[in-house]
Amino acid sequence: MSMMTGEKYEQSLRKLNLNVYMFGKKVGNVVDDPIIRPSMNAVKLTYELAHLPEYEDLMTTTSHLTGKKINRFTHIHQSTDDLVRKTKMGRLLGSRTGCCFQRCVGMDAMNALSIVTHDIDKKYGTEYEKRFLKYLEYVQEEDLTCDGAMTDPKGDRGLPPHKQHDPDMFLHVVEEKKDGIVVRGAKAHQTGAVNSHEIIIMPTISMREEDAEYAVSFALPADAEGITYIMGRQSCDTRKLENGNIDRGNGIYGGHEALVVFDNVFVPWERVFMYKECEFAGRLVENFASYHRQSYACKAGVGDVLIGAAQTIAEFNGAARASHVKDKIIEMNHLNETLFCGSVACACEGHKEPSGTYLVNTLLANVCKQNVTRFPYEIARLAQDIAGGLMVTLPSEEDFRSPEVGKWLEKYYKGNDSASTEDRMRILRLIENITMGTAAVGYLTESMHGAGSPQAQRIMISRQVKMEQKKKIAKQLCGIKEK
Amino acid sequence: MSMMTGEKYEQSLRKLNLNVYMFGKKVGNVVDDPIIRPSMNAVKLTYELAHLPEYEDLMTTTSHLTGKKINRFTHIHQSTDDLVRKTKMGRLLGSRTGCCFQRCVGMDAMNALSIVTHDIDKKYGTEYEKRFLKYLEYVQEEDLTCDGAMTDPKGDRGLPPHKQHDPDMFLHVVEEKKDGIVVRGAKAHQTGAVNSHEIIIMPTISMREEDAEYAVSFALPADAEGITYIMGRQSCDTRKLENGNIDRGNGIYGGHEALVVFDNVFVPWERVFMYKECEFAGRLVENFASYHRQSYACKAGVGDVLIGAAQTIAEFNGAARASHVKDKIIEMNHLNETLFCGSVACACEGHKEPSGTYLVNTLLANVCKQNVTRFPYEIARLAQDIAGGLMVTLPSEEDFRSPEVGKWLEKYYKGNDSASTEDRMRILRLIENITMGTAAVGYLTESMHGAGSPQAQRIMISRQVKMEQKKKIAKQLCGIKEK
Amino acid sequence: MSMMTGEKYEQSLRKLNLNVYMFGKKVGNVVDDPIIRPSMNAVKLTYELAHLPEYEDLMTTTSHLTGKKINRFTHIHQSTDDLVRKTKMGRLLGSRTGCCFQRCVGMDAMNALSIVTHDIDKKYGTEYEKRFLKYLEYVQEEDLTCDGAMTDPKGDRGLPPHKQHDPDMFLHVVEEKKDGIVVRGAKAHQTGAVNSHEIIIMPTISMREEDAEYAVSFALPADAEGITYIMGRQSCDTRKLENGNIDRGNGIYGGHEALVVFDNVFVPWERVFMYKECEFAGRLVENFASYHRQSYACKAGVGDVLIGAAQTIAEFNGAARASHVKDKIIEMNHLNETLFCGSVACACEGHKEPSGTYLVNTLLANVCKQNVTRFPYEIARLAQDIAGGLMVTLPSEEDFRSPEVGKWLEKYYKGNDSASTEDRMRILRLIENITMGTAAVGYLTESMHGAGSPQAQRIMISRQVKMEQKKKIAKQLCGIKEK
Amino acid sequence: MSMMTGEKYEQSLRKLNLNVYMFGKKVGNVVDDPIIRPSMNAVKLTYELAHLPEYEDLMTTTSHLTGKKINRFTHIHQSTDDLVRKTKMGRLLGSRTGCCFQRCVGMDAMNALSIVTHDIDKKYGTEYEKRFLKYLEYVQEEDLTCDGAMTDPKGDRGLPPHKQHDPDMFLHVVEEKKDGIVVRGAKAHQTGAVNSHEIIIMPTISMREEDAEYAVSFALPADAEGITYIMGRQSCDTRKLENGNIDRGNGIYGGHEALVVFDNVFVPWERVFMYKECEFAGRLVENFASYHRQSYACKAGVGDVLIGAAQTIAEFNGAARASHVKDKIIEMNHLNETLFCGSVACACEGHKEPSGTYLVNTLLANVCKQNVTRFPYEIARLAQDIAGGLMVTLPSEEDFRSPEVGKWLEKYYKGNDSASTEDRMRILRLIENITMGTAAVGYLTESMHGAGSPQAQRIMISRQVKMEQKKKIAKQLCGIKEK
Repeated sequence: MSMMTGEKYEQSLRKLNLNVYMFGKKVGNVVDDPIIRPSMNAVKLTYELAHLPEYEDLMTTTSHLTGKKINRFTHIHQSTDDLVRKTKMGRLLGSRTGCCFQRCVGMDAMNALSIVTHDIDKKYGTEYEKRFLKYLEYVQEEDLTCDGAMTDPKGDRGLPPHKQHDPDMFLHVVEEKKDGIVVRGAKAHQTGAVNSHEIIIMPTISMREEDAEYAVSFALPADAEGITYIMGRQSCDTRKLENGNIDRGNGIYGGHEALVVFDNVFVPWERVFMYKECEFAGRLVENFASYHRQSYACKAGVGDVLIGAAQTIAEFNGAARASHVKDKIIEMNHLNETLFCGSVACACEGHKEPSGTYLVNTLLANVCKQNVTRFPYEIARLAQDIAGGLMVTLPSEEDFRSPEVGKWLEKYYKGNDSASTEDRMRILRLIENITMGTAAVGYLTESMHGAGSPQAQRIMISRQVKMEQKKKIAKQLCGIKEK
Repeated sequence: MSMMTGEKYEQSLRKLNLNVYMFGKKVGNVVDDPIIRPSMNAVKLTYELAHLPEYEDLMTTTSHLTGKKINRFTHIHQSTDDLVRKTKMGRLLGSRTGCCFQRCVGMDAMNALSIVTHDIDKKYGTEYEKRFLKYLEYVQEEDLTCDGAMTDPKGDRGLPPHKQHDPDMFLHVVEEKKDGIVVRGAKAHQTGAVNSHEIIIMPTISMREEDAEYAVSFALPADAEGITYIMGRQSCDTRKLENGNIDRGNGIYGGHEALVVFDNVFVPWERVFMYKECEFAGRLVENFASYHRQSYACKAGVGDVLIGAAQTIAEFNGAARASHVKDKIIEMNHLNETLFCGSVACACEGHKEPSGTYLVNTLLANVCKQNVTRFPYEIARLAQDIAGGLMVTLPSEEDFRSPEVGKWLEKYYKGNDSASTEDRMRILRLIENITMGTAAVGYLTESMHGAGSPQAQRIMISRQVKMEQKKKIAKQLCGIKEK
Repeated sequence: MSMMTGEKYEQSLRKLNLNVYMFGKKVGNVVDDPIIRPSMNAVKLTYELAHLPEYEDLMTTTSHLTGKKINRFTHIHQSTDDLVRKTKMGRLLGSRTGCCFQRCVGMDAMNALSIVTHDIDKKYGTEYEKRFLKYLEYVQEEDLTCDGAMTDPKGDRGLPPHKQHDPDMFLHVVEEKKDGIVVRGAKAHQTGAVNSHEIIIMPTISMREEDAEYAVSFALPADAEGITYIMGRQSCDTRKLENGNIDRGNGIYGGHEALVVFDNVFVPWERVFMYKECEFAGRLVENFASYHRQSYACKAGVGDVLIGAAQTIAEFNGAARASHVKDKIIEMNHLNETLFCGSVACACEGHKEPSGTYLVNTLLANVCKQNVTRFPYEIARLAQDIAGGLMVTLPSEEDFRSPEVGKWLEKYYKGNDSASTEDRMRILRLIENITMGTAAVGYLTESMHGAGSPQAQRIMISRQVKMEQKKKIAKQLCGIKEK
Repeated sequence: MSMMTGEKYEQSLRKLNLNVYMFGKKVGNVVDDPIIRPSMNAVKLTYELAHLPEYEDLMTTTSHLTGKKINRFTHIHQSTDDLVRKTKMGRLLGSRTGCCFQRCVGMDAMNALSIVTHDIDKKYGTEYEKRFLKYLEYVQEEDLTCDGAMTDPKGDRGLPPHKQHDPDMFLHVVEEKKDGIVVRGAKAHQTGAVNSHEIIIMPTISMREEDAEYAVSFALPADAEGITYIMGRQSCDTRKLENGNIDRGNGIYGGHEALVVFDNVFVPWERVFMYKECEFAGRLVENFASYHRQSYACKAGVGDVLIGAAQTIAEFNGAARASHVKDKIIEMNHLNETLFCGSVACACEGHKEPSGTYLVNTLLANVCKQNVTRFPYEIARLAQDIAGGLMVTLPSEEDFRSPEVGKWLEKYYKGNDSASTEDRMRILRLIENITMGTAAVGYLTESMHGAGSPQAQRIMISRQVKMEQKKKIAKQLCGIKEK
């Protein structure tokens, strides 16, 4: 079929039989659960925009396997131009949803696997690439959303997988069968997990021989037997259960993360893409990380929304022409575009891997992500500066609707004539949402830790720069003779 | 009686008959309301610590009116030493509650009034100081908590009070009676309002002749007829309504703000401290602001808690010895102590006003507060860096208690052996609380806007520095002859 | 001939008859003057590297006019790939010279003129483009270095050109003749002026009808009659006159700026590219500025040298393995690569103008330059941190060579065994050179003000972002209905 | 005599017979050497201001030994008030000289010795304190300037003193005689060394038993036999040798550092204040460091000059009313006052040592200095932003005086009517002086490394904060039970 509509995507999710828990209870209807729903809406938009002519260039492309038109989220990048469009697609969706739209993690996992399955096969004569490409064709054909699952709980961070007290702290193979393998473990922080049709598992760190059983990559349907999802809670999550829609800030979209538990889950061989080739675990991690660090262009999109909201409240407050407000808006834009530059640059400077896949420039992808661990926090701070204190002292929508006290709020929280009190409340709640509420989880904390914490990028930056060359020229210029 | 115990303070609140609204409904029992209660606990601690010998120096002092031992929160500063102790009292309480303890605003209002009532009387032969000192003695004697109410809704910020479309956008006198005045208007962002026995009203800006009816200051019992409180909602406020106490982060303390509406409220003359002396409105605002900007030393106290929490989670994660983690902890401490330095310095450099009251150094108080609009955000960012992503993807306490999935959380969210999974959850929720949850309202957004937004401090800094002198010496040194 | 060698370039300069002043005296032999010579060496390297096979891709390209191989510095960009290569050429040269190599300003001027001459002709049927392309062919054929001269002295910044007390504060036409025009005025801060064969003049601001005589662009041989060059002095410039070569830091390369005075200089019509078409002055300025802001990728090259030097001194000091030193080196690299990302991104996002020339993305070019006004200062600060205090307390090379005290320096300024005292001195002097000495002029202050001061970029950023779109989506997400 | 005049101070220096080298030659007349002279002028001002009534409070005090009026630079602090006045004296002198006035280092050394000699005596029954107080009385009586010499060359930083290849890399005792000791070694970066009457030696690090011979402290006349001074050179130092006085920026004052070599120098017992009591070496270092970190309040004084210069050039450029310029000036002031707050706070929070001397709060002194390693760089960057590019492209004073080209400079470098071209040049050269020239050595690089490099302060901050207490409260608040 290729290229589902948003409507069909939603229907397809209803057919899944996911085992999801939240607030200690099993979720009966995942798709319509008010806390989960906004995150589904965000993924759904990745399907909807793909059908709009104005976004065709960014949202769709041609499969290098089948030559068919496909959603870019299922594509293997065939050029630096593809990589740059990926950056822009991410920003577009961030700027349309104001949150995490979750679908990039599967795309990044597939692109990383396309490189590494090829490389393993080359060394060992295995057939992972063939399996993977068959799987990929299925994903493209059905236009599936895949969760890319990497992060293990890790237990004691000072110990390698095989030395952990509890051997399950890293997901691993517990049994090898004729027709496949059985795995156990968990993946934490899984973005968009319960909105996915498939889940693609990858190891989370470089591994040695002793950790061979942990060096495993595979894909499974999201509702495979033995998989349990436990939803992470977010700041202000239960506002979505309240009456009204002002206090939730973003009335339409959201994100989510879950802990995914694999309790002796069977994986058939055709879905296994790495099996004990431990020396390739590190490469897979690194490639995935590079792609995913590029993906944080989406935060420039969320930044667009926050900047738009800050400008709007400045106008509602009658402060938009104050020079310090204008300057803060400029600074927000400057930082936001600097983020975007990093993602564009690592894409533009990408290169072709032996598999034919284009990989981003690793150094610049890490530089990109490192800035993402800083600038959204400063942009958020400036947004709160412009918003004013009312953002955190505003009474509830129910007070606003109350016959007793609603009149006082209507009267006293009126800004200038350009906006009603309700509109002012709405935009303040959106800024709260992105800087302290459900979307702050994605805009701030996940900007910090997603695709690797800041220190991970610093280590990569340190490894990727050509320090010897820099030293050599410095010495030449000041007249130090090399021995 | 002087010096209530915490218990008596709580009882005294029960006797008030406040008209409080929250979520569209009137709050029947304010003291025991689960959302408000933690904020009461924080104020209560200001009474409790005053009875502990180890804090006697900071928490208590001797009344210059009666010579009796009093809680420092009701004191008029008689020396720079008093001012420095005020700074330390604020930090102490911030570091014990991890939130806003609300009582400083009334102390700052009283000190500002002690100066300005004296000055008005001197010029006009009025008797405001006498009235005020009588009121102060009552407050000291009864050991009352006072809300200091300054911020009007302000409507269109481009217009002065008398030109607003709605004349009530600034609180004002609507009727003069024989025995007092009638006022109408509202005060926004009132910290700790419903935990106060008294409310002290001050004008919010400098005023001219035409705004004379807005230049009014007075005090009222918190439950005077015609006063309505509408509670502001905070990020994650309703977690306090949930079962369990992990997810709320800070299990004991909190803060609150409210909109306070004055609907034709009568004020007897003996409680009026300024009445149409519009040229003193600006002085009162400025003095209050200076005192209150000093008060932000409390944020260094909250910073202590956040730093302690960050160090704790680093240890639980087994990451406390990583050099980058140690360096981030140092940076957090450095920034936090820089905040403290500002508050100490403006106190140490204080001076005596004609009334005998000691006032902080205005320039340095503004410098202090300006740093408070920046550093807590960076400290919070670093805390989130150290905490790790789990802080925002952790399932709920109810999941943890659940017979079905609790075991998975227990198993997979275990850190190293130094802590149980539950302890790890608890400390993560505390960091969430201070950086995104209810306490973030106080630690971040109110650090930004409380006691004046950053631009207000910048204007004051600009006015207070001696620029002509700086120019003069620069010119001398480079040989420019002054004309 | 096309593609001069470095040697021929130097010879060609000897043939010029420039009127140059420095320290109040006319410079007889410009090429061999010890203060100017290092800047000539830097330009010379742009010729030398063009003949090395390993840099062919970056340093050379094919003329779109003649199809001949040319030095990229004389090229009109024909694709975004060309723009990206320009970025990399700049970084390469910065990293080879550790200073400003001066030749990009002429390249940027020519590219800007290629667009605007086309556009003027289109509107007015003039023949500027034809003239310009003929001139360009000459420049390419002879492989000339051109100064691109924009910045007028400007006098009272509050007044437009025609209202200045002294009409010459902006360069202008003072007489129209049959065969050309006569101009008067001056251009300040002219980088590499006395190493140039040609000088290309452009207006410095947008202009209105009343300023028509100031809206003039043209090219002249650098030694045309009536042109005087007055060399700007740099920090530590006279160290180049001293014995020895340690104290100058960079023993080979440097930069320079000059004030260029035009005292009734005649320009023949075939060299005039704009003449009173005042509405195009702004466009020319803006296009040149965009190109030139991209050019600041060179500072990432100088940053490479400074990082290499910092790493080297850390090793000489035995401190390279200290975690805080490693972290500072990473930070330097991170900031440096962020600069590079901006320049790559604005190139990659370039577009084709009607003339066929590719122009960089204006928004991102401004973002790139804005970061250049900040990060080199922080990189320099970190370099000084790593270098240690000795950098500014080191005695002179003459002390080191002295029979009386040289032994003490040799003895006491020895670091660890990896380097001699002399090598340690050399690398410290290089860091001093880039952070406080002659090269600091280019690395810091010109990073601030070259291609427009920071505020100029902020205004452009403000104009280029799509604010209405950002506001629109923010409103949609929080449920505000647009009227 | 007590309290020399400036004139007498200068005369007293002429009587010294110092062995000074600069540029490889022995300096005959140190006092009148044009490169050294400005630094002498700065020390001289510490004598001159002490005689002005308006500075009596700050510059003078009463000796606790003799009860006589003395220059505060020779005082042992007897109260926190003394410490606060020290802070203000430093800022005053920095703001009057625009550079390092050098005399604080001896004051800090004496105060540190007053504490430690007392403590050693207490433990060992030695008589260092008696000796020291006698010496102090002499210093006070004669009103001497003392160099406080701590920093050894240190050689390989990975090795302790006794393991260095060259045993002289730390100054040490080489012979014990009946009447005294003989020492060898060197002290680097000695601020104001050749303007001092006396030199006070202290060890540079904590030491163990094996390093006992390095644990030595003593005082000597600056011209004692065997001492050689080798002047460090500064950026732009030789401008002081040029004609005219514009280009040097600061026409009056400056600073200097020197390497001081001790080649078997004899010290009589009465001048020895520590001798092999190695366990007190660390305390002496730490106390000196704390005092000296406080002393960096002087940089707020230099900041005053730079801010004054920036405001002046903004006015000369006609840009002083631009909102971004005003905002940058505010930021400069804000950062500058934050530095001041740190110094005031550590003074105000000082305490009495067993010797009776008041010591600053160590934690806050380190916080103070840590900010000094950052903010002056940012203030300097902002000053360069405001100054404009002309600061680094301005021709020389000789060009300005030249009959041929002076007219062009006069004409084209005219700003608005408020200043002559010459005045504009002068103020630009002053900003260059402080941000890149001789004074940048003190304002920037020494702000970084003086009194310990940034990492030294970070280690101290880490040690001084009460981390256990912070953790304890964090755990309490979130409900973690301590085991």
